[in-house]
Amino acid sequence: MHKIITISRQFGSGGRTVGKMVAAALNLPCYDQDIIEKVAKSSGLAKEYIAEHGESKGYGGWLGNVFASSNSNYGMVNNSDIIWITQREIILDLAKQGPCVFVGRCADYILRDSAELIKVFIYADRRKRAERIVQVYGESGVAIEKRIKNKDKHRAAYYKFYTETEWGSPENYSVCLNSGELGIEECVNIIAEIYKNK
Amino acid sequence: MHKIITISRQFGSGGRTVGKMVAAALNLPCYDQDIIEKVAKSSGLAKEYIAEHGESKGYGGWLGNVFASSNSNYGMVNNSDIIWITQREIILDLAKQGPCVFVGRCADYILRDSAELIKVFIYADRRKRAERIVQVYGESGVAIEKRIKNKDKHRAAYYKFYTETEWGSPENYSVCLNSGELGIEECVNIIAEIYKNK
Repeated sequence: MHKIITISRQFGSGGRTVGKMVAAALNLPCYDQDIIEKVAKSSGLAKEYIAEHGESKGYGGWLGNVFASSNSNYGMVNNSDIIWITQREIILDLAKQGPCVFVGRCADYILRDSAELIKVFIYADRRKRAERIVQVYGESGVAIEKRIKNKDKHRAAYYKFYTETEWGSPENYSVCLNSGELGIEECVNIIAEIYKNK
Repeated sequence: MHKIITISRQFGSGGRTVGKMVAAALNLPCYDQDIIEKVAKSSGLAKEYIAEHGESKGYGGWLGNVFASSNSNYGMVNNSDIIWITQREIILDLAKQGPCVFVGRCADYILRDSAELIKVFIYADRRKRAERIVQVYGESGVAIEKRIKNKDKHRAAYYKFYTETEWGSPENYSVCLNSGELGIEECVNIIAEIYKNK
């Protein structure tokens, strides 16, 4: 089995950038937006909808799932479940094609039986993440802190719901990197070194 | 301020070995047993007692502390508190002397105002840790799993009691390394690289 890097990340930690840079440094494909596009094509759902619901659990999603599971005898499946199932198949399929980098979308859990998995979690304290969001997305104001909290909560809920393990708990990862303290470049170096030495 | 590495570690993860190897690779002093000896000298308590109570909270310790705090008007302080206070002073004093590595003893929290702190958490899954304990300490049998669970619980309780933050929660560290997946040598390489690049 070839080596695969999965990157889970807190909102605003720069994890997506780390993933792209690692992939570029190692000359590997990086799957993130591509997955969304493939899911859109396969499911007929809008890209924006998948981006929002493909790794984050909103309140509608919760209710939808409660409803779906309590009616499971009737075979009811909601959009969140369709996205999960389609996404899972696409990730398993892409993983077969060769070494690569996955950003988010529970790829660490979906590919957990791959022996050569390097599971990374990128995080940073809230202040650093708020700074980064202002810098990268040009947003500002008190709302940012609230948005960070919400995004984290929904990602954690999504992860927990579909994987039954804890998002951001060290045991689930090979390495957890504080991008706020180490910087983006150092995170990239460390992951690339681990990949080369594995 | 010079650079200091602190290593927190799960029991059986090889964190102490990582600390010693990092210190050797970077030609830095590594403080672990030395702290115990200094605390013993300064407090008059036995080394074995300090080793046991200097980073782990047993049931006696809990009761003792509840008693001490409910009677704080009378200035009652128990042995655990004496060890904490003495240890803290020794760690602050050693940290002033130059770059170094600390293993355990809440050094990460005690030195948290040092800007040049590299806070490491070493962990591994229980099976890997049990294997290592058999290998290194020559122990075996069902008791190991129980001992790991107990040690983790008491270290976490000690950390929480004196620092009011969570032991093993990524936010408290610059980097968390799964020694079971990465191997001891790779952990040493990563920490040494971070130190050199900081």
